[in-house]
Amino acid sequence: MAQQRGALDRFYSVIPAGGIGSRLWPLSRADAPKFLHDLTGSGSTLLRATWDRLLPLSGADRIMVVTGRAHRAAVEAQLPSLIDANVVLESEPKDSSAAIGLAAAILMRREPDVIIGSFAADHVITDTRGFKRAVIEAVAAADAGYIATIGITPTDPAVGFGYIHCGSSLEIDAAPSAVAVDTFVEKPDLATAQKYLADGNYLWNGGMFISRADVLLAQLGETEPELLAGLTELAEAWDTPRRGAVVDKVWPVLKKIAIDYTVAEPAAKAGRLAVIPGDFDWDDVGDFAAIAKLHSRGRKSDLAILGENARVLADASSGVVVSQTGRLISLIGVTDIVVVDTPDALLVTTSANAQRVKAVVDALKLSGRSDVL
Amino acid sequence: MAQQRGALDRFYSVIPAGGIGSRLWPLSRADAPKFLHDLTGSGSTLLRATWDRLLPLSGADRIMVVTGRAHRAAVEAQLPSLIDANVVLESEPKDSSAAIGLAAAILMRREPDVIIGSFAADHVITDTRGFKRAVIEAVAAADAGYIATIGITPTDPAVGFGYIHCGSSLEIDAAPSAVAVDTFVEKPDLATAQKYLADGNYLWNGGMFISRADVLLAQLGETEPELLAGLTELAEAWDTPRRGAVVDKVWPVLKKIAIDYTVAEPAAKAGRLAVIPGDFDWDDVGDFAAIAKLHSRGRKSDLAILGENARVLADASSGVVVSQTGRLISLIGVTDIVVVDTPDALLVTTSANAQRVKAVVDALKLSGRSDVL
Repeated sequence: MAQQRGALDRFYSVIPAGGIGSRLWPLSRADAPKFLHDLTGSGSTLLRATWDRLLPLSGADRIMVVTGRAHRAAVEAQLPSLIDANVVLESEPKDSSAAIGLAAAILMRREPDVIIGSFAADHVITDTRGFKRAVIEAVAAADAGYIATIGITPTDPAVGFGYIHCGSSLEIDAAPSAVAVDTFVEKPDLATAQKYLADGNYLWNGGMFISRADVLLAQLGETEPELLAGLTELAEAWDTPRRGAVVDKVWPVLKKIAIDYTVAEPAAKAGRLAVIPGDFDWDDVGDFAAIAKLHSRGRKSDLAILGENARVLADASSGVVVSQTGRLISLIGVTDIVVVDTPDALLVTTSANAQRVKAVVDALKLSGRSDVL
Repeated sequence: MAQQRGALDRFYSVIPAGGIGSRLWPLSRADAPKFLHDLTGSGSTLLRATWDRLLPLSGADRIMVVTGRAHRAAVEAQLPSLIDANVVLESEPKDSSAAIGLAAAILMRREPDVIIGSFAADHVITDTRGFKRAVIEAVAAADAGYIATIGITPTDPAVGFGYIHCGSSLEIDAAPSAVAVDTFVEKPDLATAQKYLADGNYLWNGGMFISRADVLLAQLGETEPELLAGLTELAEAWDTPRRGAVVDKVWPVLKKIAIDYTVAEPAAKAGRLAVIPGDFDWDDVGDFAAIAKLHSRGRKSDLAILGENARVLADASSGVVVSQTGRLISLIGVTDIVVVDTPDALLVTTSANAQRVKAVVDALKLSGRSDVL
């Protein structure tokens, strides 16, 4: 029997690149989802920045991307080093349990002792070294049999993120900062968020999961045995000529459910979930208020301007302008404003209302105006 | 000697159609000035509505329009009954003393006893009967030798209008409500406007002047003899083959000055200015706040939408949207907002900042971006 590989050598990154980012409409669209945009002004799309961040951890041939068929070309254009075997295409979105579970099942068939980490394609982290340190600890915790997540030390009482309530230390030698997850808590109101921040035992839930593939799938199977059976059937056929037929049969009937409910919360209850506190910056850029915050670096008076050919004339205005048309945009005396100017749709709102953008998208769907979605 | 005609039979309307309406940029432009827009949603441009309002007073062949050469075609398209002899084209804008003075001088040469009334092309009045009653009294006051103006009874403490402080009754039989103008006062601050409203002796200055042409020109000549000389030279050549040559020589050197300073204020000081209080609605629609107010009829919660093919999806929003592009415009939680969506320029501001739009236009001029003006 060959000598067992070290934990990091067994590590494989998985990037689920699925969500449209409805709260960023009309910038994010079905055909131009959030992960294909450069929201930070760095010159890289969020997907590409995610890839670049994972490259030092797992190498170009050990990063798998799970995405919709419609986005294949765009994803491959962004990631020229992505190898074919690492492209998993969904015929329709089935939420994160199916996306990450299928990646885990495929990779486990290829490498039974694989440790996978799943990292959203559309989050922003600039402190790559801090991120890397946390992932390395998480991989060690995964090697010790835990499902590990990375929680981000809060810097403000954010109400747009879920929180993780930390328990006691897990005393893992190679992951000294790993603590048990006591509970996951949903997005709080401001007073509760302020309490969490003051308490010091709460972290932001960054939605990253690092685990041995077999451990993750076993946990998934405890909660959703039928879903696991479907994913196993898909994985067995994946690297064979039967893939297409099995996908056509199995994928459409898979249960659509977030991995939070099938893996993270049950594992936390069972004492199998470890959290590594991360001291790096992190944002899921969930809405335009988050974009404004990212760009202003805390200065409320700033106006963030996104768009290559933006022509903006602003007087006594703050917030964020996204320009995709090259038109002259003039703002006068509008504060915390959000203006998104695209060829077929214009959004005007405020940071405080940024979360309500999704309701507009829903209303447009209902009223049959999906030409602009 | 022929029997003298009645005052109304000698009445001639003059419509100076000159101003661009910079505070309504980017809707109003050099090539699409305010008077060529339908700002009320009535289906008529402001110019056409002004014409229609004057028609019962002076008839189609007794309405003269003074406008820029560039607007001739648009004006004639709006006013198919306008006769050629009543089109006065300016080679460059020279403000209201020159525009109205030239009309007066031309008409006086054609009809020495003519009474002229000048009415801006871009004001809004819906109570046509109330307007007509006031003009008829003003014509009677003009017949009695006064320069008459029409002051509008204020309905709120507006800070965007100038005011007229009324003096005592002029005891004119045919114009029983005519009173002397004590003074003109500039746009007041809110506290002063509230005082004016409570006082009851202040009227809004509607900028309408009704006078015998000879009386108006005599007043102008007292203040600006050179300007009168130039206008007289122009008028003498106007209906002759020499018109073009004299225009080329005289028009460029005419003094650019508002009629308020050359006629209205000096006449008020000399006790020659009568004001007829008008009980009709009136607005000079000076900025987008005025448009919002016109459409909301006092309901602060309303969103006014202008534009033939406007597609607006608004949630918890109020103010005014002008759509010239057919794009979907979505507003969320923005109150008293002003959004003007044109093919090459977008304006986002608030009612409270509406007066500052002119500063943007000035900034665009200075920065050489006059392609959008």
